[in-house]
Amino acid sequence: MLGNFTYCNPTKLYFGKDALDGLKEELKKYGKNILLVYGGGSIKKNGIYDKVISILSECGKKVYEDAGVMPNPTYEKLLEGVARARKAKADLILAVGGGSVCDYAKAVSVSVHLKGDPWDEYYDKFEDVKCKVVPVGCVLTMVGTGSEMNGGAVITNRELKLKIGHVFGEEVFPKFSILNPEFTYTLPKYQMVAGVYDIMCHILEQYLSGEDDNTSDYIAEGLMRSLINSANIAVKNPTDYEARSNIMWTATWALNTLIAKGKTTDWEVHMLGQAVGAYTDATHGMTLAAVTMPYYNYILPYGLHRFKRFAETVWGVNPAGKSDEEVAKAGLKAMEEWMKSIGLVMNLTDLGATPEMIEGIADATLTMDGGYKVLTYEEITEILKKSL
Amino acid sequence: MLGNFTYCNPTKLYFGKDALDGLKEELKKYGKNILLVYGGGSIKKNGIYDKVISILSECGKKVYEDAGVMPNPTYEKLLEGVARARKAKADLILAVGGGSVCDYAKAVSVSVHLKGDPWDEYYDKFEDVKCKVVPVGCVLTMVGTGSEMNGGAVITNRELKLKIGHVFGEEVFPKFSILNPEFTYTLPKYQMVAGVYDIMCHILEQYLSGEDDNTSDYIAEGLMRSLINSANIAVKNPTDYEARSNIMWTATWALNTLIAKGKTTDWEVHMLGQAVGAYTDATHGMTLAAVTMPYYNYILPYGLHRFKRFAETVWGVNPAGKSDEEVAKAGLKAMEEWMKSIGLVMNLTDLGATPEMIEGIADATLTMDGGYKVLTYEEITEILKKSL
Repeated sequence: MLGNFTYCNPTKLYFGKDALDGLKEELKKYGKNILLVYGGGSIKKNGIYDKVISILSECGKKVYEDAGVMPNPTYEKLLEGVARARKAKADLILAVGGGSVCDYAKAVSVSVHLKGDPWDEYYDKFEDVKCKVVPVGCVLTMVGTGSEMNGGAVITNRELKLKIGHVFGEEVFPKFSILNPEFTYTLPKYQMVAGVYDIMCHILEQYLSGEDDNTSDYIAEGLMRSLINSANIAVKNPTDYEARSNIMWTATWALNTLIAKGKTTDWEVHMLGQAVGAYTDATHGMTLAAVTMPYYNYILPYGLHRFKRFAETVWGVNPAGKSDEEVAKAGLKAMEEWMKSIGLVMNLTDLGATPEMIEGIADATLTMDGGYKVLTYEEITEILKKSL
Repeated sequence: MLGNFTYCNPTKLYFGKDALDGLKEELKKYGKNILLVYGGGSIKKNGIYDKVISILSECGKKVYEDAGVMPNPTYEKLLEGVARARKAKADLILAVGGGSVCDYAKAVSVSVHLKGDPWDEYYDKFEDVKCKVVPVGCVLTMVGTGSEMNGGAVITNRELKLKIGHVFGEEVFPKFSILNPEFTYTLPKYQMVAGVYDIMCHILEQYLSGEDDNTSDYIAEGLMRSLINSANIAVKNPTDYEARSNIMWTATWALNTLIAKGKTTDWEVHMLGQAVGAYTDATHGMTLAAVTMPYYNYILPYGLHRFKRFAETVWGVNPAGKSDEEVAKAGLKAMEEWMKSIGLVMNLTDLGATPEMIEGIADATLTMDGGYKVLTYEEITEILKKSL
């Protein structure tokens, strides 16, 4: 655990089949005006909307609705949400949905009392929050992003063709999140497996980085082994409660800051995937899956030690008689087979990307220090071409 | 992750060589009167006392001292601390020391405004906290108990010969904890390895329980593998920063409620060890080590599935050609060898227990539902005899 760090994660989680009971407890802490944020309306079909409205009404709250949050929430929608929250004088923003809805709610929460423009301050200049933040609570209906227990909020600027995640501090973390695995049952299989890979990728972005083996790496391996096991069960039987609940819990711990402690990271798979998302509007987890193999096979020599450990510990590769590189490559091969077996999209073409887009996507791909290799523009282009 | 549960762990952790800088930040949040709680005075020898006093003085605080907290804090000492905290009108109780000092500080914190008797309400009737709690902060100088990030507080009643841990809710968790691995360097090796086994035992109490394999079990395996690896390094080189820091971080996550989620537990090794502690005043981690092998070998048939998994995943036992029981036993054997190799005390006789004490210790051993087997009085006696 090299370096100095702080850890503070105050979000209260209510987990299980009765988790929504926790909403009643939490609502006592906030004023009358609730901005209810949700997406395309699937929560009206599966009954979750009615359950939430019934609790809000029982608790005497005045509900202002902000529907239509899209899978990749846009800057325009964010500005609309800020206006709604101001008009409602919202005491609490209640997000009911998946990671996009939670991300959007957090982005609104930090912008309500902001004097400047949220895109300029957070997504362009990456400034810290200096104004009052409206509290956010989440009722999760889709699993993967970990947004229910962190300060992240990804927003897409269609005009600039940029999809950028800003990571806020603990003051922007949801105050509470309601995690009922059964609320995720009605999700189409395509979305479920995209979520599974989003989780896996979150863990890998933090794990495939650094030479020293610290406690975070060991926890990450445990999370990956649990996820793979549960995903294999859930793909066959999407209503296996135990499998879906383990996936849900793993998602939360994959990206609530814990397994990044003592590590540096560059989040390059997300940088590539988010650039693809800005051009294609494809499902986030699938954009990550599509660039994974070309990217990891390219950086493998730079992080050989860790790729080898990954192969042995997570994929059970037997190192006997193999070179380190052979072991590491066998691990990636095992992951590739697993990704195909659960139904992930393994190329960008199937997500709507075309060779003509590569230049633009490469331009939109950010890079950071902290991983095994800072990619050059040429390397990014090459990896994207191989991902088509 | 079966069953409903909540998770909320609001303690802010400052970790690393500069962690004490966090104390200045935190002190801003509290009033002038600080009750400074510590143990036998080793912090005066190693310079930590001076560093803390200097920061308190710099921040303009008025310091009231409560020294002499013993390794197994007594009920009498607790009452003394409550009187001191009341007299000081403490705005913050700052614990500087190991788990005993942190536990004691928490026990004082919930008793200052209590009308009744803390032993009666918390350690006898196990009631919930209904009164105001004085905030607690910790500067950790010894690793093992996890007290820096949980609501636990173990107190020994010498008159009744009972050592009992009460687990309080999140309102009693330390508000902040300062974790500088270098602060643990001066600890004698005996105490260091006792702390290592306390950590291992915390993980095992939660892991060796239940039939279903949930995410908590996978995280537990990661923590154990990290701990074993780092302990082996630290035993050879106690000032290996990386090893000591991983041990410190593992200790926190071994007992901050995370890996108990979705599980039932009976904490029977602690029940046995704490009863031994009430009779011998021996170091906590050593009492746990001394009863471990007789206890686990006895309950192995009741939790065979998990003991087998433990052997394979944590100790690398190859199951080929072995029965499940042989695999499970090989795992325990490997753990026994490891325990000896790091210098743990493997029997109660070396801790000062005598055959004449067995009846009394057995009487003082509590049992709970939640594990693989609720021990009878006869079984407890038998296990204690085998531990002599």
